[in-house]
Amino acid sequence: MAGPIIAGPAVRTGGVGGGCSVGLDVGGTKILGVLLAPDGRVVRTLRRPTVHGPDGVVAGVVEMVRALLEPDGTAPGALTGVGIGVPGLVDPVSGSVQHAVNLGIGDEPFPLAGRVAQALGVAGVRVDNDLNVAALGAAHLLPEADVDLAYLALGTGLAAGVVLNGTLRRGAAGAAGEIGHVPVDPAGPWCACGQRGCLETFASGSAIASRRPSRDGTPAPAQLLADADAGDAGAVAVRDEFFDAVASAVQLLALTYDVERVVIGGGVAALGEPLLAGVRAALAERAGRSAFVASLGITDRVALSPADVPVAAVGAALVGRREVL
Amino acid sequence: MAGPIIAGPAVRTGGVGGGCSVGLDVGGTKILGVLLAPDGRVVRTLRRPTVHGPDGVVAGVVEMVRALLEPDGTAPGALTGVGIGVPGLVDPVSGSVQHAVNLGIGDEPFPLAGRVAQALGVAGVRVDNDLNVAALGAAHLLPEADVDLAYLALGTGLAAGVVLNGTLRRGAAGAAGEIGHVPVDPAGPWCACGQRGCLETFASGSAIASRRPSRDGTPAPAQLLADADAGDAGAVAVRDEFFDAVASAVQLLALTYDVERVVIGGGVAALGEPLLAGVRAALAERAGRSAFVASLGITDRVALSPADVPVAAVGAALVGRREVL
Repeated sequence: MAGPIIAGPAVRTGGVGGGCSVGLDVGGTKILGVLLAPDGRVVRTLRRPTVHGPDGVVAGVVEMVRALLEPDGTAPGALTGVGIGVPGLVDPVSGSVQHAVNLGIGDEPFPLAGRVAQALGVAGVRVDNDLNVAALGAAHLLPEADVDLAYLALGTGLAAGVVLNGTLRRGAAGAAGEIGHVPVDPAGPWCACGQRGCLETFASGSAIASRRPSRDGTPAPAQLLADADAGDAGAVAVRDEFFDAVASAVQLLALTYDVERVVIGGGVAALGEPLLAGVRAALAERAGRSAFVASLGITDRVALSPADVPVAAVGAALVGRREVL
Repeated sequence: MAGPIIAGPAVRTGGVGGGCSVGLDVGGTKILGVLLAPDGRVVRTLRRPTVHGPDGVVAGVVEMVRALLEPDGTAPGALTGVGIGVPGLVDPVSGSVQHAVNLGIGDEPFPLAGRVAQALGVAGVRVDNDLNVAALGAAHLLPEADVDLAYLALGTGLAAGVVLNGTLRRGAAGAAGEIGHVPVDPAGPWCACGQRGCLETFASGSAIASRRPSRDGTPAPAQLLADADAGDAGAVAVRDEFFDAVASAVQLLALTYDVERVVIGGGVAALGEPLLAGVRAALAERAGRSAFVASLGITDRVALSPADVPVAAVGAALVGRREVL
C-alpha cells in the first residue's frame, strides 16, 4: 500500500561486480534475500518460505544464496561475505543462535554461521539479530553519514533496533531496544514475560489480535482498520488506542535515546499510510497536552520503513561484508 | 553516610602542574568546584553558596575559579580550560544557557561561557548540562576505557546522563535521558509537564515530599526512611513504593540503552546504602516475577555515586579541558 517514505539514494539494480555480499532476513514464515553490490546497490532480491529446525534453516539459507548467485554464474566463494539476520538470541562473535522459537531453534546455542560457511565454502558468514540488521539496513537507505535512528519493529511483539550516530547499539546484555517490556500500566494485561502492562501488550500485532481476533484469516490489524473505516465504534476505539500506544513507543525512544528518526517497520507496518497518519495524529495530541513533549518535535521524526525494499536483508548483507561489527 | 561504591583509581590530592583545568557544578543552592590535574587527579575541591541571577552566577563562578587557584598562586590564564555544569538548557557550542530556573536564568539565552571567559581572561570556557557532566565525571572514576553507564539523578526531578562506550550521548534534541517524563501509569498523578503518571511523579525527591512532606525541615526522603525504620506502616508503604519506582527507572535504562552500569546520584542519593539496598531488593523482586527481567542481571549493575567526590564538578573539568566535545 505505502511507498517508501524514507528519502535516500535510489536503490538500483544492475550487474554483479566483485566484492558482492548476500544478506538474508530469516523470519518465522519466509526468508528474504538480497545480493548487494560493493557500492551498496541492491542487485537482486528473492523470497522463499522458511523451513523450520536447525537443519531446515541451514538448507534454506544455502539454497537462497545459490539462487541469488545463479543468474550470473558466480560461485559463493567469490562473495565478500554472507550475513544472516534471525529473530533470536545471537552471539555475533561465534555466530551461534539460540531461543529462535519461530525458526524451531531451541535453548542450545546452534552454530548457524559455522554450518552455513561449511556448506557454502565461504569463510565470511556472520549472524546478527533481526532488529539489528533492520536498523542497519534502514540507516543504509538514508543519505547522511552519521545516521541516528531507531527501527521500531511492530510485529507479533514490539522492539527496536538502534543506530546512534552511525554506530549500532547492542548493549551490555544484547538487550538494547527491548522497549516492548517496559511496563506502562500497572493495571494493564499480563505479559508473557511475567510482568504486567508491558508496552507490547498495547502496541503490537498480538495486542490487536487479542482485542479483535481475525474473523476470516485477514490479518487482525488490517481487519481492525477496515472495521473502523466502516464505522464500527468498538473498532474505532481499539484502533485509536493502538495508534496512541505506538505513539507512546515512539515518544519513549525520543525520551531515552533521543534519536533523530524513528522508522516504523515490522509486519504491522504493512498497514502503510493510515498507520503513519494515525501515529502522527496521536503524537500531535500528546504534544497538545504537554509543552515539554511538543518541544521535542517528535511528530516530524517518524517515518515508515520502505515497503518495497527488504530493509533487514540489506542490513544483513552489510553485516556480511563486515562493514559493521 | 555511604562511602563511594564505584571502584576505580584512587582520587588523590597533590600539587598543581601545567595543564590543569577547573570544573564547576553550579546548582540551585551551592557551587561545587574542583581543580583537576592533567593526569585526572583532583587537586582541590571547594563549596560555596549559589548567588542567583545571570550576574550572580558569573560572579560566583569567577570567584570560585580564583579561590581554587589562590593557594598555588596560579593565574587563571594558565589553565587549560574551565568547564561549568548547569541545570538548564545548554548550547554547548555557543556556551549559552536558558531555562535554568533554579539559577534565576530565564527564557533568553544567556552567554555564560563568554561572560566568564571575559571576566577571567581565559579562552577555554565551556558549559554543559549538569547531567552530562555528572555522567562524564562518574565515567572518569571508573577504571575501564570504554565506560558504558547511565548516571541516574534522583533529585527534585528524575533524569539520566548517559555515556555509551565512552561517548556522551546528547541526542538529537539534547533530550537523551529525559526518562522522568516517560508515563508509566495512566491513573497516576498529573505531572508539571502536562502528562499523567510520569516516572518522575513516583521516583524523585518531590514524589516523596508530596506524599509525606517534611515536618521539621529534615529532607523528606531522610524523614521517610526514619519513619519507616520506626515502624510507621504508612511510611513503609511509601518507602517501598519509592524503591520500586527507582527500580523501574533502572530497569527502563537497561531495556533501552542496556548500559553496563547505572550509577545513582542526585540529592536523594544522600540516603546512601539503605537506598541502594532497597532498590536492589525491588529489582530482585521484579526478577523473581519475570524470567526475562532476571536474564538481564540488572541488580548487579546498580551502584551509588561516590559521596565524597564531586562527580559533576570533575566531569565539568573534563569538559573544560576539551576532552569531551
